[in-house]
Amino acid sequence: MIVIIKPKSPQREIIALKQKIEEENKVSVNIIQGKEYCLLGLIGDTTKVDASKIRANEFVEDVKKVQQPYKLSNRLFHPENTVVKVKDSSIGGNELAVIAGPCSVESEEQIVSIARDVKKSGAKFLRGGAFKPRTSPYSFQGLRVRGLELLKIAREETGLPIVTEIMSTDMIDRFVEDVDIIQVGARNMQNFELLKQLGKTRKPILLKRGISATIQELLMSAEYIMAGGNENVILCERGIRTFETYTRNTLDLSAIPAIKKLSHLPIVVDPSHAAGIWWMVEPLAKAAVAVGADGLMIEVHNDPANAKCDGQQSIKPKAFRKLMGDIDKIMNAVANRGYDVVNV
Amino acid sequence: MIVIIKPKSPQREIIALKQKIEEENKVSVNIIQGKEYCLLGLIGDTTKVDASKIRANEFVEDVKKVQQPYKLSNRLFHPENTVVKVKDSSIGGNELAVIAGPCSVESEEQIVSIARDVKKSGAKFLRGGAFKPRTSPYSFQGLRVRGLELLKIAREETGLPIVTEIMSTDMIDRFVEDVDIIQVGARNMQNFELLKQLGKTRKPILLKRGISATIQELLMSAEYIMAGGNENVILCERGIRTFETYTRNTLDLSAIPAIKKLSHLPIVVDPSHAAGIWWMVEPLAKAAVAVGADGLMIEVHNDPANAKCDGQQSIKPKAFRKLMGDIDKIMNAVANRGYDVVNV
Amino acid sequence: MIVIIKPKSPQREIIALKQKIEEENKVSVNIIQGKEYCLLGLIGDTTKVDASKIRANEFVEDVKKVQQPYKLSNRLFHPENTVVKVKDSSIGGNELAVIAGPCSVESEEQIVSIARDVKKSGAKFLRGGAFKPRTSPYSFQGLRVRGLELLKIAREETGLPIVTEIMSTDMIDRFVEDVDIIQVGARNMQNFELLKQLGKTRKPILLKRGISATIQELLMSAEYIMAGGNENVILCERGIRTFETYTRNTLDLSAIPAIKKLSHLPIVVDPSHAAGIWWMVEPLAKAAVAVGADGLMIEVHNDPANAKCDGQQSIKPKAFRKLMGDIDKIMNAVANRGYDVVNV
Amino acid sequence: MIVIIKPKSPQREIIALKQKIEEENKVSVNIIQGKEYCLLGLIGDTTKVDASKIRANEFVEDVKKVQQPYKLSNRLFHPENTVVKVKDSSIGGNELAVIAGPCSVESEEQIVSIARDVKKSGAKFLRGGAFKPRTSPYSFQGLRVRGLELLKIAREETGLPIVTEIMSTDMIDRFVEDVDIIQVGARNMQNFELLKQLGKTRKPILLKRGISATIQELLMSAEYIMAGGNENVILCERGIRTFETYTRNTLDLSAIPAIKKLSHLPIVVDPSHAAGIWWMVEPLAKAAVAVGADGLMIEVHNDPANAKCDGQQSIKPKAFRKLMGDIDKIMNAVANRGYDVVNV
Repeated sequence: MIVIIKPKSPQREIIALKQKIEEENKVSVNIIQGKEYCLLGLIGDTTKVDASKIRANEFVEDVKKVQQPYKLSNRLFHPENTVVKVKDSSIGGNELAVIAGPCSVESEEQIVSIARDVKKSGAKFLRGGAFKPRTSPYSFQGLRVRGLELLKIAREETGLPIVTEIMSTDMIDRFVEDVDIIQVGARNMQNFELLKQLGKTRKPILLKRGISATIQELLMSAEYIMAGGNENVILCERGIRTFETYTRNTLDLSAIPAIKKLSHLPIVVDPSHAAGIWWMVEPLAKAAVAVGADGLMIEVHNDPANAKCDGQQSIKPKAFRKLMGDIDKIMNAVANRGYDVVNV
Repeated sequence: MIVIIKPKSPQREIIALKQKIEEENKVSVNIIQGKEYCLLGLIGDTTKVDASKIRANEFVEDVKKVQQPYKLSNRLFHPENTVVKVKDSSIGGNELAVIAGPCSVESEEQIVSIARDVKKSGAKFLRGGAFKPRTSPYSFQGLRVRGLELLKIAREETGLPIVTEIMSTDMIDRFVEDVDIIQVGARNMQNFELLKQLGKTRKPILLKRGISATIQELLMSAEYIMAGGNENVILCERGIRTFETYTRNTLDLSAIPAIKKLSHLPIVVDPSHAAGIWWMVEPLAKAAVAVGADGLMIEVHNDPANAKCDGQQSIKPKAFRKLMGDIDKIMNAVANRGYDVVNV
Repeated sequence: MIVIIKPKSPQREIIALKQKIEEENKVSVNIIQGKEYCLLGLIGDTTKVDASKIRANEFVEDVKKVQQPYKLSNRLFHPENTVVKVKDSSIGGNELAVIAGPCSVESEEQIVSIARDVKKSGAKFLRGGAFKPRTSPYSFQGLRVRGLELLKIAREETGLPIVTEIMSTDMIDRFVEDVDIIQVGARNMQNFELLKQLGKTRKPILLKRGISATIQELLMSAEYIMAGGNENVILCERGIRTFETYTRNTLDLSAIPAIKKLSHLPIVVDPSHAAGIWWMVEPLAKAAVAVGADGLMIEVHNDPANAKCDGQQSIKPKAFRKLMGDIDKIMNAVANRGYDVVNV
Repeated sequence: MIVIIKPKSPQREIIALKQKIEEENKVSVNIIQGKEYCLLGLIGDTTKVDASKIRANEFVEDVKKVQQPYKLSNRLFHPENTVVKVKDSSIGGNELAVIAGPCSVESEEQIVSIARDVKKSGAKFLRGGAFKPRTSPYSFQGLRVRGLELLKIAREETGLPIVTEIMSTDMIDRFVEDVDIIQVGARNMQNFELLKQLGKTRKPILLKRGISATIQELLMSAEYIMAGGNENVILCERGIRTFETYTRNTLDLSAIPAIKKLSHLPIVVDPSHAAGIWWMVEPLAKAAVAVGADGLMIEVHNDPANAKCDGQQSIKPKAFRKLMGDIDKIMNAVANRGYDVVNV
């Protein structure tokens, strides 16, 4: 960490600040005296140094971070890729982990039928929303606990592990009991109370990037979960908010190699929510595989025009089957991709 | 609401869609047939029509909203300004409501001393964080329930109503008991489970705009609270995330006249969090008053350099006093401002 | 185009507006009268209707566009893909067009050597900056006309057509004479005087998307060139500015299928400028191919550490060769990709 | 400037890099060796050091700038406010400089009549577009040279100096001859060839911030003009592009105190273009004055509903007169404002 001192600050204040930083943070501080500026260089583990506290000093112009402010999710301290095991499947290894299913669970027939379809096409996990975060209080809010029951039936029928979103701390016990991967949605990526509680479980957590979260903030939210002792974190890129309005969000595929470099955690891509339009799912899914994602999360619905939510971005089982075939070919074309991305 | 039909769609599909929309939504649908495009115009109350369901139809190119998708927070259906009463004070009327205090409650001495200072300078409400949402799990997380106790002491000593942030549903009863205005932070603006529960109380809620939330999404989140029966909602603009990095966030002062036009709810401005730098608080606070805000929320600390959080954006009691004097002059210069903004 | 009338507007004003719009624009206008809102639906060719003029009417609440405001670049009026011919090569057909070379031309030896290398690896075009737009006036500004001469030597030596950026109208004659594809940089995407002049030539124009330009604005800038009679426009996605700072810009790969749907013009992707970091070029280039781009523009330098500009984002000839091999495999894996993207 | 070295880089490479940086840039370099990271601290004038060249070294992880990369526009080297003189008026002193007039010059009668109106209300400068940058090639492009002639007539009639936008280098001589302040529009803020040519003149230049330009990039563009010898630069904040779509752009009023701190150049605010809606001009203009702007640029039209461009954001002469009265009161309320902003 580098502290930029204001021009013309008194020497004794600089020395006092140096001492204060050293005492409070167990780091050593070098003074670099330039003509216009004086800098303090902090040496040691600065992961947990609170930059805003230093910035509050009246002689400080600015503070620049050198080290990433996360530790458990940092590849620097954990060079090997993390592989999250979920029953007989895993996310983060050599195989692509495809999670597929409808936006929301609507009925037993619907979820079981889609589960069978996606399994046949090669999906390894079933997704389906039971608790739905909707922008409008007047929109369908999900079948809630009834939705969880239906997901369990679909798992029973197909053997696919189930992934579904949690929306508040009071449902954690239930989710730990019922679900295989607990999803934290983009809107709750910085719901820190929720993250802390999930850190106390040992369930795999699928943590979606908030639509305005930086890569660093995503990794800090992963750190919240890991700091509680739960290392089974799977990241998910699902588009960020930009000025472009043609797509619902802008899928940030550069985030995949970036996160592969910065962190050892697996990362999957959700092209359905990013684009918000069904016909973009196919090309974006292919691109996600080519760029090095560990998995995909894709919305599949047997009757999008009558879906209770997000039908406009769901593809049909037949299109999903074709996509899975194409993806296989790309996986072959980009063999060893994970390794290359990390080490070039 | 306008539905744009894809070029060359079969006539019978258009008619089927028209009928489906009419049946499901109790609206009537006009067909406008152009040369290149065919449009459907929905007539009636479209507030609760789910545009994404219509967009999922394979013959639909796009859907454009005409009416705002919120009702209870909409000025169209409630022309008079809402004034939220909090004990002997109010927010939304002719007087400027100033909320001031430290980022976080640190000790009895600290909070009581600051409370007395800001009261003397004219603040009407005391702010102070007990539960703190911090990006890093390693940063100070607030004194939590102990912080609430200290706030109550400060209220006892000064008579100032207290405003503090809630972070999860399991604390609602406690906050309803202890606090005068419950703040929902920017990161929880779309924590819908929390909003729903707060809608069941009758406490004033200070709802902060998320850093990437549109004005419409902010009003939809207010709608969540109001749909539960709690109409005591105060909005807060605190900066949005943009590409500019010199300031922490970009204070969107245009949102004030926009919200005044779209909604009857009061809106306050938090320049401290927007700028993230103490010396910008003064000019931005003045601008907020000139643009027509109903109030300000300002971080004041007696010892910013040793504050446990956000010291870099806190002003000292003396600077706050000066600012309050300047603001008084601007208030006089922009008399009748609220009204003008709405009716020009 | 839909015109939303303000609530409670007098009927005669609505009729006057309807007549005015009809007279000025040769369209017919339908009135749709709802309970809260009245709408005007414009029927006919609204491509050239100036929405802001209508919005200026005091009884107009808002105007929504239905039809894209571009015509010559619009796929609706030109369903077949445009293939731009450049000497013996082409951009927009079944083969991937790879443009490679250094950020800036530095010396004869440098440009000829790199040209040979990239040709050997399969590049079809040579890029190299002669006139360089640099943020700082103190940075290297390019060899200017001397750079053009060196590019011509490299073309002479290798047969590769040359692509280089133009920065002002007074160089157009020279560029038409010397260059095979004239590049318009991101910063000049809305330099309309330049676009108009280029529209009068018949040279292929590589038009880069501005870092804050929407897809629609990019197509409008293409329209400027085409309106002058020059239909040889190649679009280029090179990243947009977002809040994320880890990458220099955020490569918007969703823009590729979007533009394939909206326009018949070919589009290439420049991963080097988007990421701004050399080790991201490989994964992003692969993703660009998988998503359906017609070509790539890649910075290759034989000695990046001593490059006069953008060395940090240049890959070496050897890495380029390997990348070209990998890309071949992906091209095979995504056969018929262009067609699929457009017609799903 | 701080160079962050990659973990585990060989010591001799670090030393080689240190020497290379010292030789090429006439700075001295300190090595700070931490446990995880090694840093190089550059001491001396780093304004002109090309960070991207250093970043291109394979052992460099990242480079952080400490010093602002502009010099002539930097307050550090020029503490006094610059006041730009234009005939008998000035911009940057104690008085507010108000520039008003129509978006585009349409006829002699129009421009002369508006010029008289705005002068009567207290405007000090007349604006009016002759060459108009329009997103669509099919929109009105301005009266061009005829527009310049009409502006001169309006100046003749009223004595108001005229401000109008230049769009290409080949018009510079004409503008120097005809115009009092040459405006560079947001779209041309990084048209470096234009900036360089304008640097050779001694005309006052009104440089508008690009819609996606950072504050630093705006100051770098000012530096381009100043590096040529022309120090008469006036900056203009006119809104930036964000995700919010209710307003055309988001007026970044925080940029005013930021620029006051970073630079000595005067800065004016254009609320008309930022908001894109006439009824927001009044509150935003007031806020701009309260925040410390040196001037305002406001679109005034006598018949907005029939304006040839941007009528939707133009206010009428009567509203302008009222606004000027209100602004006077705010100016009195924020006396000494400029000074305060800089020195708090």
